[in-house]
Amino acid sequence: MLKEKLPKEKVLRDPIHNFIHVEDPIILDLINTPEFQRLRRVKQLGITSSVFHGAEHSRFGHSVGVYELARRITERFEQYYSDVWEPKERLLTLVAALLHDIGHGAFSHTFEHLFHTDHEAMTREIITGDTEIHRVLAQVSPDFPNKVASVIAKTYENPQVVQLISSQIDVDRMDYLLRDAYFTGTKYGEFDIDRILRTMQPTPDGIAFDIAGMHAVEDYIVSRYQMYLQVYFHPVSRGMEVLLEHLLQRAQELYRSNTTSEFAENDFVGPLLAPLFSDKKLTLSEYLKLDDNVFMTYINIWQSHSDPILSDLSQRFMGRRPLKSMEITDETAPLLEELEQLVDNAGFNPRFYTARNNAYDLPYDDYKPNVAKPRTQIDFLLADGSHRELSDMSTLVAAIKGKASIDQRFFFPKEMLNIEPDELFADTFKKFRSFIRNNALTTPNPES
Amino acid sequence: MLKEKLPKEKVLRDPIHNFIHVEDPIILDLINTPEFQRLRRVKQLGITSSVFHGAEHSRFGHSVGVYELARRITERFEQYYSDVWEPKERLLTLVAALLHDIGHGAFSHTFEHLFHTDHEAMTREIITGDTEIHRVLAQVSPDFPNKVASVIAKTYENPQVVQLISSQIDVDRMDYLLRDAYFTGTKYGEFDIDRILRTMQPTPDGIAFDIAGMHAVEDYIVSRYQMYLQVYFHPVSRGMEVLLEHLLQRAQELYRSNTTSEFAENDFVGPLLAPLFSDKKLTLSEYLKLDDNVFMTYINIWQSHSDPILSDLSQRFMGRRPLKSMEITDETAPLLEELEQLVDNAGFNPRFYTARNNAYDLPYDDYKPNVAKPRTQIDFLLADGSHRELSDMSTLVAAIKGKASIDQRFFFPKEMLNIEPDELFADTFKKFRSFIRNNALTTPNPES
Amino acid sequence: MLKEKLPKEKVLRDPIHNFIHVEDPIILDLINTPEFQRLRRVKQLGITSSVFHGAEHSRFGHSVGVYELARRITERFEQYYSDVWEPKERLLTLVAALLHDIGHGAFSHTFEHLFHTDHEAMTREIITGDTEIHRVLAQVSPDFPNKVASVIAKTYENPQVVQLISSQIDVDRMDYLLRDAYFTGTKYGEFDIDRILRTMQPTPDGIAFDIAGMHAVEDYIVSRYQMYLQVYFHPVSRGMEVLLEHLLQRAQELYRSNTTSEFAENDFVGPLLAPLFSDKKLTLSEYLKLDDNVFMTYINIWQSHSDPILSDLSQRFMGRRPLKSMEITDETAPLLEELEQLVDNAGFNPRFYTARNNAYDLPYDDYKPNVAKPRTQIDFLLADGSHRELSDMSTLVAAIKGKASIDQRFFFPKEMLNIEPDELFADTFKKFRSFIRNNALTTPNPES
Amino acid sequence: MLKEKLPKEKVLRDPIHNFIHVEDPIILDLINTPEFQRLRRVKQLGITSSVFHGAEHSRFGHSVGVYELARRITERFEQYYSDVWEPKERLLTLVAALLHDIGHGAFSHTFEHLFHTDHEAMTREIITGDTEIHRVLAQVSPDFPNKVASVIAKTYENPQVVQLISSQIDVDRMDYLLRDAYFTGTKYGEFDIDRILRTMQPTPDGIAFDIAGMHAVEDYIVSRYQMYLQVYFHPVSRGMEVLLEHLLQRAQELYRSNTTSEFAENDFVGPLLAPLFSDKKLTLSEYLKLDDNVFMTYINIWQSHSDPILSDLSQRFMGRRPLKSMEITDETAPLLEELEQLVDNAGFNPRFYTARNNAYDLPYDDYKPNVAKPRTQIDFLLADGSHRELSDMSTLVAAIKGKASIDQRFFFPKEMLNIEPDELFADTFKKFRSFIRNNALTTPNPES
Repeated sequence: MLKEKLPKEKVLRDPIHNFIHVEDPIILDLINTPEFQRLRRVKQLGITSSVFHGAEHSRFGHSVGVYELARRITERFEQYYSDVWEPKERLLTLVAALLHDIGHGAFSHTFEHLFHTDHEAMTREIITGDTEIHRVLAQVSPDFPNKVASVIAKTYENPQVVQLISSQIDVDRMDYLLRDAYFTGTKYGEFDIDRILRTMQPTPDGIAFDIAGMHAVEDYIVSRYQMYLQVYFHPVSRGMEVLLEHLLQRAQELYRSNTTSEFAENDFVGPLLAPLFSDKKLTLSEYLKLDDNVFMTYINIWQSHSDPILSDLSQRFMGRRPLKSMEITDETAPLLEELEQLVDNAGFNPRFYTARNNAYDLPYDDYKPNVAKPRTQIDFLLADGSHRELSDMSTLVAAIKGKASIDQRFFFPKEMLNIEPDELFADTFKKFRSFIRNNALTTPNPES
Repeated sequence: MLKEKLPKEKVLRDPIHNFIHVEDPIILDLINTPEFQRLRRVKQLGITSSVFHGAEHSRFGHSVGVYELARRITERFEQYYSDVWEPKERLLTLVAALLHDIGHGAFSHTFEHLFHTDHEAMTREIITGDTEIHRVLAQVSPDFPNKVASVIAKTYENPQVVQLISSQIDVDRMDYLLRDAYFTGTKYGEFDIDRILRTMQPTPDGIAFDIAGMHAVEDYIVSRYQMYLQVYFHPVSRGMEVLLEHLLQRAQELYRSNTTSEFAENDFVGPLLAPLFSDKKLTLSEYLKLDDNVFMTYINIWQSHSDPILSDLSQRFMGRRPLKSMEITDETAPLLEELEQLVDNAGFNPRFYTARNNAYDLPYDDYKPNVAKPRTQIDFLLADGSHRELSDMSTLVAAIKGKASIDQRFFFPKEMLNIEPDELFADTFKKFRSFIRNNALTTPNPES
Repeated sequence: MLKEKLPKEKVLRDPIHNFIHVEDPIILDLINTPEFQRLRRVKQLGITSSVFHGAEHSRFGHSVGVYELARRITERFEQYYSDVWEPKERLLTLVAALLHDIGHGAFSHTFEHLFHTDHEAMTREIITGDTEIHRVLAQVSPDFPNKVASVIAKTYENPQVVQLISSQIDVDRMDYLLRDAYFTGTKYGEFDIDRILRTMQPTPDGIAFDIAGMHAVEDYIVSRYQMYLQVYFHPVSRGMEVLLEHLLQRAQELYRSNTTSEFAENDFVGPLLAPLFSDKKLTLSEYLKLDDNVFMTYINIWQSHSDPILSDLSQRFMGRRPLKSMEITDETAPLLEELEQLVDNAGFNPRFYTARNNAYDLPYDDYKPNVAKPRTQIDFLLADGSHRELSDMSTLVAAIKGKASIDQRFFFPKEMLNIEPDELFADTFKKFRSFIRNNALTTPNPES
Repeated sequence: MLKEKLPKEKVLRDPIHNFIHVEDPIILDLINTPEFQRLRRVKQLGITSSVFHGAEHSRFGHSVGVYELARRITERFEQYYSDVWEPKERLLTLVAALLHDIGHGAFSHTFEHLFHTDHEAMTREIITGDTEIHRVLAQVSPDFPNKVASVIAKTYENPQVVQLISSQIDVDRMDYLLRDAYFTGTKYGEFDIDRILRTMQPTPDGIAFDIAGMHAVEDYIVSRYQMYLQVYFHPVSRGMEVLLEHLLQRAQELYRSNTTSEFAENDFVGPLLAPLFSDKKLTLSEYLKLDDNVFMTYINIWQSHSDPILSDLSQRFMGRRPLKSMEITDETAPLLEELEQLVDNAGFNPRFYTARNNAYDLPYDDYKPNVAKPRTQIDFLLADGSHRELSDMSTLVAAIKGKASIDQRFFFPKEMLNIEPDELFADTFKKFRSFIRNNALTTPNPES
């Protein structure tokens, strides 16, 4: 049975929202589950902290921040829009906000790509499976866990709740932009959150904004666009990510092939990583043990492994020596084969020492009924009650609407740029460098 | 031989100082050593992030921040005080600032207390021993590593350099106050760093301040005082620290006693922790492998250990369920024996489930020639060339001068406060609670 | 009859509180009265902007800021403390907060001292007299204006309301500290307003704080103490204030004595200043016309006046050439007669070119029943329901409790410090300077 | 003869740059001239403070802020680009930065439009004419004043200096955006000034930026664009500006026509405004007396003038009751005649109670050799030494390049929107309102 509100609210000190206010016992209990506490051990931006050293913040802080935004919005909705907003949706919204990232693992992107896990499936499993989280949620009502899962899966019937949690201007995005800007120390992610919250309103079809919030919303979209280009796409952290992906791949191959070798080497993955590297599906409990620390600890150990590629990649990763990169385009991509060959000639296995990596984001789009996953567009309410879509009012947003930001790069060992190459590879290095102009791949001049 | 300045400065984005400016190849090379990169994996505030979730920042960011302050100060000294300040001290000061924390291990305080290591000795060893750091330093001149070590050990001949690095208003303290305030999201640690830097001057005897900086310096001392009381002494993070200390102690005891058991249990510490738990002295290389991740990973593993105390303490630690505490005084301390007995009665081994823990700091003192470690007092220069000591000008500083801030506490399991105790221990819990009033230990009323 | 809340709240953008939220038609109507709009033309810090050029902010911004704090506090009180706080006090509190400064005139301090006006009496008159403000207030109920006046006069029966508006930690002080710190660009005035608001509670006897707010309240008292010493007592702006006072005094004397002179000179005060300089009491309507602009305009005109003292003082004031000052004490004050004589000897009439000026503030005191105006002390609620006074818990506050901050100074023309004095007054200047050491008045050495 | 640097730098506390550092006696002397001190009495944003109450800041703070940016840039240029930048240009650049606004009068825009003055001509006159400013400048060298004037007039030979002072990313714009954002409390004007300063470089042709600064420069352009739309174009402050313009026009007409009336009325402009209203050209000395205070004081007086239009407009202005507005377009503009007629019918003289007002800004353009005043485009330096123009790299800037932001409005008395019109004008008001939809002028529906 659902408990009442706490006799006295609890607060967590937060650098972004100053305080996170906890008013419901359910929220407090969820925060105190081991599954939620695990989020303290998963960095919000993964390896990006190797470039922006302030960005060590965890998914825990982000998750309570998302919750806090949802709390403020629903409080406002109850006060001013009781005709359109149903108070009973409040707790559901808060819980979905708090738990939206609960399934994320360490270095999510790399992890999922490599080990074929799916954080959305994990989120659903944590909410509806045999966990403390589930036990807390079930206290509200037997169908509450499924309702929470459906909000996160965007299948819940009330579009207001779904759009608050997942849309082009949802509590998740608003919190991570502010938070990532704060911890990286960049200023691009800042926008006027108070004004956005003040002008946000529930409508029968979902969420819309008062016209007075137009410029704040525009600024939010522009900020997000800039954060992608400058922080999330940063080529140096992608150079670290490539290292991470390749070394985990190498370790898994060694683990799987290693049937006969001596024990110490066989055991180099320990009890927590072994299930991941095996060919069986991870259990939920195994998955929940895997945090950043586990990966970092084994990479630490692998620095002394007998496999030269695994140990070298691990040392580069721990010593923060990322792969370098150059921009490529669809036109110049065919030249890469020759570059890969040159890397091979210089003694680096291109499978582990080069990579093609495309960073991609679609900053904003209006509703397009015929595309695979249509976006919920951002709408404003005019004085006469009609709606107007954001890019119709903002020159800046119109300029980036529907246009993907893409940064395609080729990664390779820094050694290829050695300015004073030793005798051995002098020509290889020289040849390699002739392909680069203004940090981008180009056809070399014939004479060079 | 010492290389010239970099052709173009490099910068690191930093939330506190906006940019860290690197102008010297030596500094860049030091940052790129594996020993320095290790600092990314050691949290500045250790377990404090369990209370202030923003405070996940590492010693890496702090170390480059300390360097940046030293860089700004020495640049100013060269520009305005070339009569008193020798430009050749610049690089030495910068390097000492950068490396002052290089010997710090994970969870420093707990670690040193438990395993009898000494971060100051480690710092010296890293600077003068067989390390990348040492190789970079030796490029400046053969005696440079020793000079750097002597600055950090406070034995270097030039008091200006020593006081910049270690005094009651040094680059270390100024950076960590600003940084910890930023990442915790508290406002107490803020002070006017620009004004302090502007009024700081070299004198023949060390460092002094222009009278125009008095209030900024006063505010810095007050801020530091408040940060200790509110952040560094926080009883909840101390309740986590006690858990950590006790579980490591328990693990070491199990490791040492465990000569005959089956392998899996014997191996529960892995290759990185084993040297720490053994009875041999850690080598430098073994020490440098030990970062936060290693400890967190094994505590993660120990949650399933067969020893009930180790697994329970590990689960409490990973699930963030700290020991509770109450204030105690020298007068009330004798009552603790009875409390410990009650904890024992309730089924918790007091050796691992209770602790007495004193937080202590002396916020400021003037120079007292006869004490063991006399403090360098903070002096101001008057118009007529005479000096005046800080507490002589500031009522606030005078109030805390020479007075230690102390917070003495007794830690115990939260279960002792159960409001609806089960049948079994109802009386024990009730008795225990009768000793607490306003969160402090008191003699119970006879009737209660 | 009282109108309902506004159908949609209005907001004013504010740099301190981000938005000022107006929910009641009465508040909006009050802001729109000419009496309230006048506050835009009265600088919050008067002549202090001549030292801190950012501090041009007006009493208007402060007044709506004070209102906004009151709004947030009463909203919280209604939500959490409906057992102790009566909702009907809300509007009264908001209005008293908004209007607490409505009677302030231009350069208040100087003005009142010179022209024997009283901003408290003016406030009462504006609220209860023949004004737009009064007409708006009377719409609430016939006795509402008097109730508002009684809150501001501290005679209202409910101590909660009175203490929110006027106490040692009231909405007025909290706003002006934050605001003055922001606009001056100093950092001393900052404190954790959110935490203070969160821990503030109504009690049957007035206002108290949760123990969790102790350090935030301590920091507020310390901030206030520092703002006084560094901003409000600033000797340079007091050097401008002395100029202002003396030139107004001179102008009044000329005006009153000038019965026979030609018209242009007689009319040098214009229709707005004339009533002030005459020997009749100002009417309310005359008083409300007098803003900063009026004084600044006539001082501008007086720069060309035929009286050499009035024109010289006016030129110094407009050109920002303040009188210089030195610290004095009760011990050294007897020396001033000799200094005044030297100033006279140098050709400056000491009545207009010198001044003794004491800046004074009592930063905090506990309740002392026997003094003339006992202070309401700041109390905290302990877990067992008992109260504890602030200085009993804070070493810093204890150090400044009951101790007045005093800065006594002697002001004189900058010319007295001429380093290369001309022939004429060389000895006078030299003699004068022999009295100054470290910017303070001292007995000269016999030989100097 | 030019004096050396000051023995010790002086600082002004500034909320934007923290400190303004004054190192040269010439700069200090310029700041201390009465002409420069006058800037304290001219608001940076004029009447905009009636909407953003924090924006009371003066041109004084802006001018020293512009100087400070120039100081930082030239210091950097001297340190890193001594091959391209000549140190002798430093002082010239600083002085031009400090004085670029010296000719601005009160309510500049309105003023110039109405009285046919020209702040650029005034600036030249102040620098080269009979002023304190000129006397200080002439100490540097006899041709120095003319050089300073030529920099501000953009005719100076060194394009580096000219572009620092006047271009699409000059010290003036950078300071005013940061400053106006700070004082209004909006966040749109913020951008990463440190990064821009760090990546700015002198080239033989002027100023360019390192590619690393691209996003910071983009953000600056976007911020400027947003500040125009949201702050500088604000319809409510334009509604106040229209009032101001019309009342001054009315006062001038009355002054000029008023040859025979009684004295008191004839004298309603006083000695400072009289020269402005007369048909003679203002002398420099007369111009320099006219500050915000003078206008505000006479408008204050005019509230009681016998002319009903002048007194009514003055009361509206002092009581902050702006004209209302609606958006218009070239298409709808022909309808205005009918609206003006309706205003006339309602008893308001349309000459004084209505206005068409177009706000206009071209946010950015590249170099177009054939236009009247070609813009200096913003260029970036690539690794191979080639240049690339900003909009060629930034999708956002490309979207607004060469496109003017325009906001056309029609202003009218608020009374026209009376919801419960009195008997007399009910139909007129109803008819008027039928032209407005979503705050814009439209053709009314036939039936309405």
